[in-house]
Amino acid sequence: MTDQPVHINGLYTDFYELSMAQGYFYAGKHKETAVFDYFFRSNPFKGGFLVFAGLADFLEQLQSFTYSAEAIDYLQKLGLKPDFLEHLRHFRFNGKIFSVREGELVFPNEPIVRIEATLPEAQLIETLLLNILNFQSLIATKAFRMKLAANGKNFSDFGLRRSHGFGGLMASRAAIIGGASSTSNVQAGFMYGLPVSGTMAHSWVQSFDSELTAFRTYAKFNPKNSILLVDTYDTLRSGLPNAILVAKEMEAEGEKLAGIRLDSGDLAYLSKKARKMLDKEGLSYVKILVSNQLNEWVINSLEDQMAPIDGFGIGTELVTGKPDASLDGVYKLCESAGNPSMKISENIEKNTLPGKKMLWRFYDEEGNIYRDGILLDNELPGHCEWLYHPAQPDKKTAVAHLKREQLLRLVYENGLPVYPMPTPQECHHYLTKRAELLPEEHKRFVMPHIFKVGISANLLELRNELMQKYRKSYEG
Amino acid sequence: MTDQPVHINGLYTDFYELSMAQGYFYAGKHKETAVFDYFFRSNPFKGGFLVFAGLADFLEQLQSFTYSAEAIDYLQKLGLKPDFLEHLRHFRFNGKIFSVREGELVFPNEPIVRIEATLPEAQLIETLLLNILNFQSLIATKAFRMKLAANGKNFSDFGLRRSHGFGGLMASRAAIIGGASSTSNVQAGFMYGLPVSGTMAHSWVQSFDSELTAFRTYAKFNPKNSILLVDTYDTLRSGLPNAILVAKEMEAEGEKLAGIRLDSGDLAYLSKKARKMLDKEGLSYVKILVSNQLNEWVINSLEDQMAPIDGFGIGTELVTGKPDASLDGVYKLCESAGNPSMKISENIEKNTLPGKKMLWRFYDEEGNIYRDGILLDNELPGHCEWLYHPAQPDKKTAVAHLKREQLLRLVYENGLPVYPMPTPQECHHYLTKRAELLPEEHKRFVMPHIFKVGISANLLELRNELMQKYRKSYEG
Repeated sequence: MTDQPVHINGLYTDFYELSMAQGYFYAGKHKETAVFDYFFRSNPFKGGFLVFAGLADFLEQLQSFTYSAEAIDYLQKLGLKPDFLEHLRHFRFNGKIFSVREGELVFPNEPIVRIEATLPEAQLIETLLLNILNFQSLIATKAFRMKLAANGKNFSDFGLRRSHGFGGLMASRAAIIGGASSTSNVQAGFMYGLPVSGTMAHSWVQSFDSELTAFRTYAKFNPKNSILLVDTYDTLRSGLPNAILVAKEMEAEGEKLAGIRLDSGDLAYLSKKARKMLDKEGLSYVKILVSNQLNEWVINSLEDQMAPIDGFGIGTELVTGKPDASLDGVYKLCESAGNPSMKISENIEKNTLPGKKMLWRFYDEEGNIYRDGILLDNELPGHCEWLYHPAQPDKKTAVAHLKREQLLRLVYENGLPVYPMPTPQECHHYLTKRAELLPEEHKRFVMPHIFKVGISANLLELRNELMQKYRKSYEG
Repeated sequence: MTDQPVHINGLYTDFYELSMAQGYFYAGKHKETAVFDYFFRSNPFKGGFLVFAGLADFLEQLQSFTYSAEAIDYLQKLGLKPDFLEHLRHFRFNGKIFSVREGELVFPNEPIVRIEATLPEAQLIETLLLNILNFQSLIATKAFRMKLAANGKNFSDFGLRRSHGFGGLMASRAAIIGGASSTSNVQAGFMYGLPVSGTMAHSWVQSFDSELTAFRTYAKFNPKNSILLVDTYDTLRSGLPNAILVAKEMEAEGEKLAGIRLDSGDLAYLSKKARKMLDKEGLSYVKILVSNQLNEWVINSLEDQMAPIDGFGIGTELVTGKPDASLDGVYKLCESAGNPSMKISENIEKNTLPGKKMLWRFYDEEGNIYRDGILLDNELPGHCEWLYHPAQPDKKTAVAHLKREQLLRLVYENGLPVYPMPTPQECHHYLTKRAELLPEEHKRFVMPHIFKVGISANLLELRNELMQKYRKSYEG
């Protein structure tokens, strides 16, 4: 598709990636292979899961991740050296990428993307990968929480004006993956094929001599899709009486008013009042939509109060992923030149898991998601009898008898995705199916039950060996 | 500059702007003039000010805000009508824009940008304006708070991996306006001419057989600019002893180690320990840089503890503007077809201010910023004796005798900016000068003193008249 507003290139990276790539080049290590894992450390929003998203955008941008002559000139000005820059001129990511699907439910510390490439290749794309996957996964998760709260009612993304600059394009895509029914963002609709919606703002109402004329005019030119914004002057005393009048006039023309929108005040109180006023006039078909500082908790509360609301318009909190505003996803080296590698922390839970690994999902007898297991890549899952708690290995779960599924799949090779990426709507469909298999207690908002992710005996042994080796090296 | 990764067009808008523009077209109102104000309602971060930013990007993108044949085809698929689309094919924003400067300190409810155009022109660009100005102002403000906390020490933007997709480009620009000394974001450095910095990650250290070899190799190829990351295995028992060894080896070659970086653990404790270990070896010139989940409050605390830190690397909180993650900036119609207009709210403080207005700044006898005043655009400031509190008009301040300055200036006309935009570094310089004139009590973090913004008697009268007129219309 043309008219795409964003085309990044190899400059879309942190400077230290280039500085390290240059170091590998001069140290003669630039052909050494490396394996990196992408994982996150804690579920956003104090929830029980993450919805993985952003893969298709990442793989698309990766194809243009190269260095033009102009980019090379710029890097020379930043102090990088001519031999290395000559080498960089031919840079292209030629590694392999394994990933879970977009829309998959994933959990802390699992390798959800695995990169196999030369050291500089893997290093240079780190920032791009983290930038796109962290953000879209955050927003898809936020959106799915809103869907869970909304009890099957629709909600739309209204957030472009509050999103982070051009990050708003990906925000709308991720919102659809998570469950928004449409977006107000026309550019994102065009780029990603998303459903687009929207009707009127306060300025429409203000630009006419009276609210009634504003409503009448809108309805006249949009008889099939008028949602009248009723709070410009006074919701109950002006907006609703005028909307009711226009609805009656539309009926006389054989048309039907689609809905009204409440954008301020107490939405539970006003929606109940509005429903009564509309119903009393025989306008029970007129829908009530609400907006104004909504999030999953407010939706929950409105639903608890049985507010007669038909749909939600959500801006700020959806597209910024408030209050978290970021996902703590990281990209860590786990194998270098064929040797397993790890980063050690004072806190055992922050040690990384060494070696090339595979992520498996285990199902219970009813077919529900029961455990995830991290095994070494060359382990046959049939040989893995137990999964161990990574930080407290005396805790273990028997899995030999369980149905299992491999979650990481090859998605990129030889400079191209290996199959067509699903649309955002298809990703949401996949998410819906997966969520049905995840027990309710992991999906609740308040203190969700922690989903357990274990590691194999072989991985546990490898990690303990490496920790001892490193400790020895500086304890003498 | 070419190689710009982002080029938006007229699709970068909320669908309701197009839906309203079509309505204005069919209602014959598309040549009516309109004036819109951009303002925000509360200072971010519970602080005492906002740093305005994003203007140059907004004006640049505005120049490509048009509709290609492909865009028109897409809008037809969304249901917009052929006559209107034919009209839209020739769309170009030809209005006037008045704005405060980038780097200006501004306050709630002030008109900081004023748009004068036809109704559809002003409407269609609303989303673009809010998207860019809300975000960059949020981040510039966050960055300036960090600068205030850092007591003159440098801090760098490390945030691209945690920023909101391509929003990371503007985040780095705004961080420099607010006071970051450099960014790790190479693409933003290229686009905006920002200072770029960065050295090594844990993966560099892990990719060598030992930490010592990793440090030695880095120092060998970067003798002038090595900052060694010392926490891959154990900061005090491995990282620092190895860094000291390499610093000594560098001295033998006539070179000097630039610094070490601490990226985990208690940064106050570790920086004190590290400073002692380095000083004991005669390495008092080796700088200590820190990173890991920093914000203005953590920096404040480290400074209070006299932690011997030379510079800060800041990622997530800087580029996402946590915990707010958004600025509540809005865009409201204040004049339509020459008539003043306003939106009424149950809460008098949320009523908008009608009419075309000018923002003035008043200075006290010492030359410090004392009050801001909102006057009607055609008022001579010499005739304005008092400024009134907008919600409690019995409170007023005499300003007739004060030095004053007009803050809104014409910045865009006939499809082009009217003068060259200053660089981000120049905007920061301007901010620094302005901040010197703002009394300390508005800059403190905890319960800052509220800066007072008043309105003229004429504006007050106009607002009250309009409110009465609207109320009458539905109270009968």
